[in-house]
Amino acid sequence: MSNKTHEYHVIGKGSPRIDAADQVTGKATYLPDLIRSGMLHGAFARSPIPHGRILNVDTSRAKKLPGVKAVLTGPDTPEARHGYQLTIANKRPLVVNKVRFIGDEIAAVAATSEEIAREACSLIKVDFEPLPAVFDPKEAMAEGAPVIHEDMPGNVAAELNKDLGDVEAGFAASAHIFEEAYETPAWAHCCMETRGALAETDGQGRITLWACTQFPHILREILSKVMKIPTRNIRVIKVKMGGGFGSRQSMDSIDPVAIYLAQKTDRPVRMIKNREEEFTTDRISYPMAARLKTGVSDRGELIARHIELTTDTGAYNDQGLYITSSAGSKVTGLYRVPNVRIDGKVVFTNKLWGGAFRGYGNQQATFAIESQMDQIAEKLGMDPLELRLLNANRQGESTASGARLISCGFTECLEQSTDAAGWKKKKARIKPVGATKVRGVGMASVFHTGGGSIGSHGSSFSSAVVKIDSSGSIDVLTGVPDIGQGSDTIYAMIAAEALGAKLEDVRVHSADTEVTPYTLGVRGSRETFIAGNAVKMAAENARKDLIDRAGEILDVDPQYIDAANGKVFVTFNPEECATIADVVGKPMHAQFGTFPVGPPIVASAVYKDPVSRFSKEKTGYGNFCPCYVYGTQVAEVEVDTETGNVKVLEVIAAIDVGKALNPTAVEGQFEGSIYMGIGFALTEGIVWENGRVLNSHFTDYKVMTAPDMPKIKSIMVETHDPFGPFGAKGLGEAAIVPTVAAVANAIYDAVGIRFNELPITPEKLLFAIKARKQHTPEVAMR
Amino acid sequence: MSNKTHEYHVIGKGSPRIDAADQVTGKATYLPDLIRSGMLHGAFARSPIPHGRILNVDTSRAKKLPGVKAVLTGPDTPEARHGYQLTIANKRPLVVNKVRFIGDEIAAVAATSEEIAREACSLIKVDFEPLPAVFDPKEAMAEGAPVIHEDMPGNVAAELNKDLGDVEAGFAASAHIFEEAYETPAWAHCCMETRGALAETDGQGRITLWACTQFPHILREILSKVMKIPTRNIRVIKVKMGGGFGSRQSMDSIDPVAIYLAQKTDRPVRMIKNREEEFTTDRISYPMAARLKTGVSDRGELIARHIELTTDTGAYNDQGLYITSSAGSKVTGLYRVPNVRIDGKVVFTNKLWGGAFRGYGNQQATFAIESQMDQIAEKLGMDPLELRLLNANRQGESTASGARLISCGFTECLEQSTDAAGWKKKKARIKPVGATKVRGVGMASVFHTGGGSIGSHGSSFSSAVVKIDSSGSIDVLTGVPDIGQGSDTIYAMIAAEALGAKLEDVRVHSADTEVTPYTLGVRGSRETFIAGNAVKMAAENARKDLIDRAGEILDVDPQYIDAANGKVFVTFNPEECATIADVVGKPMHAQFGTFPVGPPIVASAVYKDPVSRFSKEKTGYGNFCPCYVYGTQVAEVEVDTETGNVKVLEVIAAIDVGKALNPTAVEGQFEGSIYMGIGFALTEGIVWENGRVLNSHFTDYKVMTAPDMPKIKSIMVETHDPFGPFGAKGLGEAAIVPTVAAVANAIYDAVGIRFNELPITPEKLLFAIKARKQHTPEVAMR
Repeated sequence: MSNKTHEYHVIGKGSPRIDAADQVTGKATYLPDLIRSGMLHGAFARSPIPHGRILNVDTSRAKKLPGVKAVLTGPDTPEARHGYQLTIANKRPLVVNKVRFIGDEIAAVAATSEEIAREACSLIKVDFEPLPAVFDPKEAMAEGAPVIHEDMPGNVAAELNKDLGDVEAGFAASAHIFEEAYETPAWAHCCMETRGALAETDGQGRITLWACTQFPHILREILSKVMKIPTRNIRVIKVKMGGGFGSRQSMDSIDPVAIYLAQKTDRPVRMIKNREEEFTTDRISYPMAARLKTGVSDRGELIARHIELTTDTGAYNDQGLYITSSAGSKVTGLYRVPNVRIDGKVVFTNKLWGGAFRGYGNQQATFAIESQMDQIAEKLGMDPLELRLLNANRQGESTASGARLISCGFTECLEQSTDAAGWKKKKARIKPVGATKVRGVGMASVFHTGGGSIGSHGSSFSSAVVKIDSSGSIDVLTGVPDIGQGSDTIYAMIAAEALGAKLEDVRVHSADTEVTPYTLGVRGSRETFIAGNAVKMAAENARKDLIDRAGEILDVDPQYIDAANGKVFVTFNPEECATIADVVGKPMHAQFGTFPVGPPIVASAVYKDPVSRFSKEKTGYGNFCPCYVYGTQVAEVEVDTETGNVKVLEVIAAIDVGKALNPTAVEGQFEGSIYMGIGFALTEGIVWENGRVLNSHFTDYKVMTAPDMPKIKSIMVETHDPFGPFGAKGLGEAAIVPTVAAVANAIYDAVGIRFNELPITPEKLLFAIKARKQHTPEVAMR
Repeated sequence: MSNKTHEYHVIGKGSPRIDAADQVTGKATYLPDLIRSGMLHGAFARSPIPHGRILNVDTSRAKKLPGVKAVLTGPDTPEARHGYQLTIANKRPLVVNKVRFIGDEIAAVAATSEEIAREACSLIKVDFEPLPAVFDPKEAMAEGAPVIHEDMPGNVAAELNKDLGDVEAGFAASAHIFEEAYETPAWAHCCMETRGALAETDGQGRITLWACTQFPHILREILSKVMKIPTRNIRVIKVKMGGGFGSRQSMDSIDPVAIYLAQKTDRPVRMIKNREEEFTTDRISYPMAARLKTGVSDRGELIARHIELTTDTGAYNDQGLYITSSAGSKVTGLYRVPNVRIDGKVVFTNKLWGGAFRGYGNQQATFAIESQMDQIAEKLGMDPLELRLLNANRQGESTASGARLISCGFTECLEQSTDAAGWKKKKARIKPVGATKVRGVGMASVFHTGGGSIGSHGSSFSSAVVKIDSSGSIDVLTGVPDIGQGSDTIYAMIAAEALGAKLEDVRVHSADTEVTPYTLGVRGSRETFIAGNAVKMAAENARKDLIDRAGEILDVDPQYIDAANGKVFVTFNPEECATIADVVGKPMHAQFGTFPVGPPIVASAVYKDPVSRFSKEKTGYGNFCPCYVYGTQVAEVEVDTETGNVKVLEVIAAIDVGKALNPTAVEGQFEGSIYMGIGFALTEGIVWENGRVLNSHFTDYKVMTAPDMPKIKSIMVETHDPFGPFGAKGLGEAAIVPTVAAVANAIYDAVGIRFNELPITPEKLLFAIKARKQHTPEVAMR
């Protein structure tokens, strides 16, 4: 299957990012580097209490502070609510009447410096009537709990119930039933640059917003609704970003409020969150409680599964329902299981609100699924690998939720990762490696979209423009923002390969709603598959023109002309050739002594995913993605039983990438994902006390650093998806999913203690080891 | 002919510029409004002498000035020469060894403020060996004249000799021969914003230059040669400009030097000329001396013409040859004449160098031609109108130089302008209107390209992208810079009309070499015809997609669907209709409750002028333009014989515009041209003393102001060019050409004195009136 090869000149060769030097020399222009003439600086006055009624806002002292140009409160702004799904959105950019979490936006100031703006915010006096607050979803759903939104008295934002097959009959037919609860905390996205926005109005009443966004075109539509002005009067330009990881898939109040301030002052206004604001007011992952019940046959075949998810959406409604649904669907993705029930509840609490997070609920679900698979294997006396191979979904099959596995390298991933890890040997060895050190090995897999999702809009598409100038300079226009994931580089490679050009001759321009063509943005690992196909199509259209023109130059029928590596040549005599510049510039070049001039080539394309289909009536999911990615990770850990410290020694990551367009970028995705996954397993998670975030800096919110990182071995399984560009699938999210469960399973393998609640901190580990010594060994810890 | 009509919704309706509000509210972002993070400011140290050898440049004091970050002299920069035609370019951005005019660039400084940069420049000490200088082309060509460029000992930069027909036989067959000399001075372009550049390097060694340019893509090619780096590593972005008028068709040293400084300092560098620098170092029109000899039959038919042009190119070589050639060709354009000789010499002097100027040599030539036509008419006892109508080139004919007059409204212009002016009545009336006031009326015409020129590159073309988002927002991408002439508005109108959209839904993005498609820029009135056709084609391609998609929505065969004014409708039942947003957004909209999402429409086009052809072997010119514009202006003046002051009372301007796409813009072009033309006739002209410009500010260089302006009547003759977009031709240059001769002819009509040298200042007029009183009346003055 993965032996299919092709003679590529650019594709498949590892390339550094085309903007790598910008990044490492500090030349990249992030939002704080963006200055507009006459620009003001904005800041927010935020709620110091988790829940309360606003009795009075006194902005008089703030307004008097020299340098302050505008002070706005909620009532000064248009009635509008945002949130990912506008129909059930309930966040006002600046609140009116009530605050619902510590950090809620009460007022905004524009001033001649950020310092003055922040000082002015501190001078705004708000009188509150404090209300009782609730921070736990279960408590929030309890009788008599404080009501966070008056129009949603039970604090339940959304509910989800899906039946695929007959789950009751499935459990009845099962030889063994496993049921356990798992819990994942709120993770911060930890983008290396904090979020901000720069808004400017023009003389015509139009708005330009430089935004930290993963979805500029959709953001423009949302702003149009929130600002109540036509879409055509808003331009969104994505700035250089230090990652998004899903957080910038949602609009933040900073976007409309920067615009309000720019409109009010008639000057450009830039607002940038500081790190504490980023941690305490930006989107987080949804904390989820999962109860997973699985019925299996004597041989270990999965017969039925029921997952119940309780999602803490925080103070406002964003993507909780979609992410809970996405998480739920994962119980059908990895392993064949005919009978499934998915129940979910999305619940308000007085905490900051959740949003999309790389993986879109998958790591929460997969932690439960893959922890439980190990528990099942152990109970049945099977090797975890054996159980997984037995149940693994395979190419050509469809999952219970309707996903069609057109290409699927799951089995290869299972086998190649465990082979490389020396799985059987490591499972069998003696765990202690010293007086206090024990080692263990664990595995977990992932099933994820490899090319976006048709989501609620019923289609997945993208578009691109490719142009070639007479000098042979090639430009690609795409609406997809490079948010740090390297999509610009992938598009440059795709265009170069499809055109037969040199990579160095291609520039990529991305994510300006007016200049670059419409796209759904960076969501659901769609960049390579969907937008990559659009770039490939546009480049192929340009190539057609190029070959036709070369036919005139080389005086050969175009069917005998090929292009590769910057040269256009006659296939039966490759020495008859011309450069791309010769072809585009030459026809009109004869009378011009100095540089090539000639009509350019300008081509465009709109790509529509031909595979995905909704079939809601049947499963509620259907084949919602054009392709799916499978992968397996094997983690080896060393636990210090004296300190509780866990060191991840090695992660072997095998993923079905379809085709590795840029192996360097694939490795980067693997490494970046594993860095995050280990953090989730061992250290990361927001800690609240009465609604206040206690760890709002990197000193307290511990992410992995270079010395924490294990040895990583990347195995790229190439299944050559028939619809992927050059066979490729997207993998920006997939690699992050299995790490958590793999590490947890490895810890179990090392110390015999299972942790169902993340993160597995040294404190928890030591407590569990101590508890085991006092009681019985191998107790399941929660 | 001009009765052809069509039901247009956007075209033909006067529209303010789409960026008008930006302009009048001060919101437009000109170069001085552009700030980049860490930006430095640059300035030039310039030569104080007109000719001299550089013995030593001491930059030590400049380098020590606090805030100075870099000081560069010629030897610090790469060996490279610029000038429009690179093959005979001889200007180094920073000179080495020699200076050749007062203002020549010797060194450049980058510092933390413009003030510091300029102060540092004043601290640079240059030791010169002064050389004898020459300021007059005739003296420069004389034996023993100082040599300005060692490799061009006779100071002749270029020569031109073209024979069309048999000019000697023509003169031999003529009944009357007229021969006279005419002279035009150097005019300043007087852009409302001075020239500047902002250069920035990135981590990859690429350069972005924000430039005041009319031809971003060509500038990029020239910079590539001068900087000796690949074209693909340079991005040129045009900034908002207050006019170009040809001056920004040439690169200035400021462009590469800003880049040198940015490279040297590794920081963005912005350089902006002050007004004095703009007047003393930027491009000017070429002063020309024309000797025009014409042979006519007894009846007044033109039989032969010989024009000899001496062009003062200044210290360096730019477009002198092309402009001299263009000027020469004009003797064949207005009037039928079978035998023509054109001789030209382009001569170096120690003055600032010339460049393109709106009209491209035409106003210099036409001043001679149309002055002489009046002289011929007078001698033959004919009405000037009668002589012109007799000889006027007509539709379907070709000129001696090979121009094919596919559409030609010359006769209509002659007739309609004189009718509107009451020509016969005014010619016949008694001139004095008071004790010291005499009135006169004069006419002159123009023949000019109406759509660019294939020039030295053998083709005229442009390209465009038109895209429609699901919201119905439409964007047009064009490489053509709007330099104040309103091309963005024209493209928006063309796209709206071609698509059937509303003008307000269209945005235009122009002139960024990487984002917008390749174009030859703003040169030769090509924007409307050539680039307008490209926009029209791209919009028509988009419209095809739109109609096809509408067919699905409206469930009707696309052949029965039309689009107009933002609506797509069924032709046999227009009430069955949808908005463009419905069509583009709707198909995928069903499941999305809030805003339209759907695959965009993205279309592109490359337009190649199908008409122009070189046939050099025959005429040296050939049909070098796709269409030609004719026009006539009738000027009425009042001369105060006591003060010598001339007041232009009225100008009637009739021009064959093909089709007035935006009548408001046409009127603007008429008014702006007449403002310039009157200035040329009466006041404008750079004054030198020993190579030093004496009038380097608007206080001394007198341009017309509002109270100086006459009543203007605009007559738009519509000949509906079969190849023009909606029949239109370009007219950015044509209207400026005839004013000078019309005013000069009117002055002759008023006072009976002919001036062959411009400008006709009160001083000259008074002197001539006085001289006539002392000697004989009606003496021809030079």
